[in-house]
Amino acid sequence: MNILIDGMGGDHAPEEIVKGAVQAAKEIPHTVSIIGQEERIKECLSEMNWNGDNIEVINATEVISNNESPAMAVRKKKDSSIAKGMRLLKEGEVDAFISGGSTGALLSAGLLILGRIKGIKRPAIAAFFPKIGMNDTSLILDCGANAEAKPEYLQQYGIMGSIFVSNVKGVENPEVMLLNVGAEDEKGDTTHKEAFELLQNSDINFKGNCEGRDVPFGCCDVVVTDGFSGNVFLKTAEGVAMAVMKRIKQKMTEGVMAKAGALLSYNKLKEIKKEFDYSEEGGAPILGLKGPVLKIHGSSKANAVYNAILKAVPYVEQDVTHLIESAIQSKAGEEEA
Amino acid sequence: MNILIDGMGGDHAPEEIVKGAVQAAKEIPHTVSIIGQEERIKECLSEMNWNGDNIEVINATEVISNNESPAMAVRKKKDSSIAKGMRLLKEGEVDAFISGGSTGALLSAGLLILGRIKGIKRPAIAAFFPKIGMNDTSLILDCGANAEAKPEYLQQYGIMGSIFVSNVKGVENPEVMLLNVGAEDEKGDTTHKEAFELLQNSDINFKGNCEGRDVPFGCCDVVVTDGFSGNVFLKTAEGVAMAVMKRIKQKMTEGVMAKAGALLSYNKLKEIKKEFDYSEEGGAPILGLKGPVLKIHGSSKANAVYNAILKAVPYVEQDVTHLIESAIQSKAGEEEA
Repeated sequence: MNILIDGMGGDHAPEEIVKGAVQAAKEIPHTVSIIGQEERIKECLSEMNWNGDNIEVINATEVISNNESPAMAVRKKKDSSIAKGMRLLKEGEVDAFISGGSTGALLSAGLLILGRIKGIKRPAIAAFFPKIGMNDTSLILDCGANAEAKPEYLQQYGIMGSIFVSNVKGVENPEVMLLNVGAEDEKGDTTHKEAFELLQNSDINFKGNCEGRDVPFGCCDVVVTDGFSGNVFLKTAEGVAMAVMKRIKQKMTEGVMAKAGALLSYNKLKEIKKEFDYSEEGGAPILGLKGPVLKIHGSSKANAVYNAILKAVPYVEQDVTHLIESAIQSKAGEEEA
Repeated sequence: MNILIDGMGGDHAPEEIVKGAVQAAKEIPHTVSIIGQEERIKECLSEMNWNGDNIEVINATEVISNNESPAMAVRKKKDSSIAKGMRLLKEGEVDAFISGGSTGALLSAGLLILGRIKGIKRPAIAAFFPKIGMNDTSLILDCGANAEAKPEYLQQYGIMGSIFVSNVKGVENPEVMLLNVGAEDEKGDTTHKEAFELLQNSDINFKGNCEGRDVPFGCCDVVVTDGFSGNVFLKTAEGVAMAVMKRIKQKMTEGVMAKAGALLSYNKLKEIKKEFDYSEEGGAPILGLKGPVLKIHGSSKANAVYNAILKAVPYVEQDVTHLIESAIQSKAGEEEA
């Protein structure tokens, strides 16, 4: 197996990317390839005294930044790490592609170069959100690949999410819920009401509607949401968790007693902060593309890179891409019959 | 001025409602009327040894529960606190109506009995969300009155929110932002892109798009959102804040040192919990109806009731309903011209 990572994507590239790749390459019996400006990447490798044989460096001279128009950048910069990386995945030279670069560019490259699985209307970005205190995560999708939503997209998100979680995480018969404005069956706008019906009639373990407040408490394994609400969900969760932590820090230093208290429980607070940091969870699979693609947070450090590479292994091994293809095609067959 | 409160609405009615009403009546030079089952309310008043003259009790024999179909309940139960209360507001017998009962029923009664301001497409539920650490709030609307959204609704939410915040809270030239999936101007689905244009061309201080993570940090005074995302925003914020607090409590009791730390900072944590509790903020105005209506949380205790009554006073005094009417009509006039 050959897992490719974008050496140029993210705020701490290439140093932290290379660090994470080395960490992973030491542990797994697979090749980890790093794509990007060869010299810089090799420099990082030699600084880390890497002398193993399962890291390969692939040269790509161009870099796509966050400020460029994604589709245009992918078309123009054919020798960028994202465009070339996606081409290598399409050609079967590598088995998975991970990037912390521009989400838009990665998605565009996925659509333009790799392509959608036959029958999939829209690929979806799936993020792992912590089930607080349960040492587990929910998969929430779509988190913003598509701002527009149709009921059939949401149904496919449910099917793809369910296949991913059961095969990659090994959850038997994963529970799927629809993020809505209330728990009752008939809640929501027309799109979500129709999506509810479609999900109920799908071959998945659909458990009905859930609300934003239920997700952190681990209400289910797969949360289906339109890309707009999913994005609002993730960013709100991030903002509120940050705001609470910030206030605790401020408040804890008010007064002598509180200061003493804070000193004693400082480590505990740090642990909690980490629990809520979904960027550590090892990358968001973009489901529905013709191959395993994972997006990692732009702020990813070595540990997040390492986690993403480890997550890519079962994604490839279980051949999730083909499982999704089969599920969608057997569904299409049923509908024709 | 006569402010009417629903004595039967909410989990702690009528006891906590009456308590909050008494607390407010002692402070303001206005009449506070309580509508509901007369005997029970009078019992509560005498238990509280109330002997002032600015509380009136209005009998309404029926109660609408959360489990009933809102529109049907409002039509059938003409002598319910919600239906009768709304009628009294329409007839000018009272100047504002506050309820902690079924949101759906209150909204239905608002639409069916009181009616919309001329030109307003959809009334919106506006909630006060804490600007963390700033001892201030943002007004966020719509929080779920309308699951479906059209660009013109969003524009009107911005205008109504701006008028409310500048007149009731006294914020000069309040900053308005649109909750979207990114900060850049061209973000979002078709509805939000069009809403962005409309808001930019409105006579308000529109500052562009914001994201869920910006709101807790107090990015603006008025957050415009479609009812679906707004509801996801509020419930996610609630869930994440609760989850963080719960984890802190759990973690703080692990190990002797942490326990000691927790004891010392217990009061500080309680203060923070209160900061994030938007239900304390004194009710959510339902803007766009032909009169001041406020929804308070079903779990409201006396203090939230008291805050809502106090908030209703400037809402009536500043005649926000007519200010909204004028703004919408002058906008309609401009468009015709």
